[in-house]
Amino acid sequence: MTTMADMLPRGGEMPASDFLKLLISVIRAEDSYGNWEGKADSDLLAEFIVTPEERRAIPIIGDPDPDLLWRVEKFYEAIALLLERRTGAMAAQMSRIHHEGFGRIVLISGRLVVLSKHVRDIHRFGFESFAALAEAGEALARDAADTVARFPDAARA
Amino acid sequence: MTTMADMLPRGGEMPASDFLKLLISVIRAEDSYGNWEGKADSDLLAEFIVTPEERRAIPIIGDPDPDLLWRVEKFYEAIALLLERRTGAMAAQMSRIHHEGFGRIVLISGRLVVLSKHVRDIHRFGFESFAALAEAGEALARDAADTVARFPDAARA
Repeated sequence: MTTMADMLPRGGEMPASDFLKLLISVIRAEDSYGNWEGKADSDLLAEFIVTPEERRAIPIIGDPDPDLLWRVEKFYEAIALLLERRTGAMAAQMSRIHHEGFGRIVLISGRLVVLSKHVRDIHRFGFESFAALAEAGEALARDAADTVARFPDAARA
Repeated sequence: MTTMADMLPRGGEMPASDFLKLLISVIRAEDSYGNWEGKADSDLLAEFIVTPEERRAIPIIGDPDPDLLWRVEKFYEAIALLLERRTGAMAAQMSRIHHEGFGRIVLISGRLVVLSKHVRDIHRFGFESFAALAEAGEALARDAADTVARFPDAARA
């Protein structure tokens, strides 16, 4: 039986999104040897997609895969760039992730923690669709911008 | 030839210091099996002492020793406790240390980065004397308390 979901490409339609554009650019920035030049954007982002069935199948024991931690880092790097574009505040990323998959990720501007995210089951980091990935990034960048607006002096300190 | 320095115990006199007391207590808190019960405080802190001659002899290549990173963590943990005692602000530690020995260590209270320290040559972390260790900890706790006083709302957020 063929369902609608089978006919859509994996991750669904790629929405127009500032966040996705920045995420793609931070990933392409690491392609020093041009190996990914022929790759479509949807291929570069493919590993950010995890369907609910896949999510359930991912074991949450064992050290998180370095490639996964790399994707988490690029995700927050793109949020930092979007924040900078919208507010001018430059943010540095720090994380403390236990090998069992829980931890905390922060973005810091000046003296201000503009984003603080406690994570668990980091092994299962991923999004159902490109639209969900874009929304998650945009929402976090918006929260960060709100925090900068709330404590502008600390962000500039 | 016997010099004055040869006659003093390693690390010199142990000064009365709230910071040193807290540092000793965070170290003893990890002694689950009571192995260190017979150890003097000066023995517990002995590895925080690095003389200038020793410092020069420490290679700054290779991954930093896990025991050293543990000492760095305890040092900032004691600063966080001293800050809490003096201001009521509880601080969490995060660090990002490159295996080449440079990086950044922060203490975060609420939304505020109360302490931000860029480190390099972490391989050589240590102090000439107990007095220097105490002073360094007290000075950083004082800076952190000043930052809390400057941005009290962000620290409570």
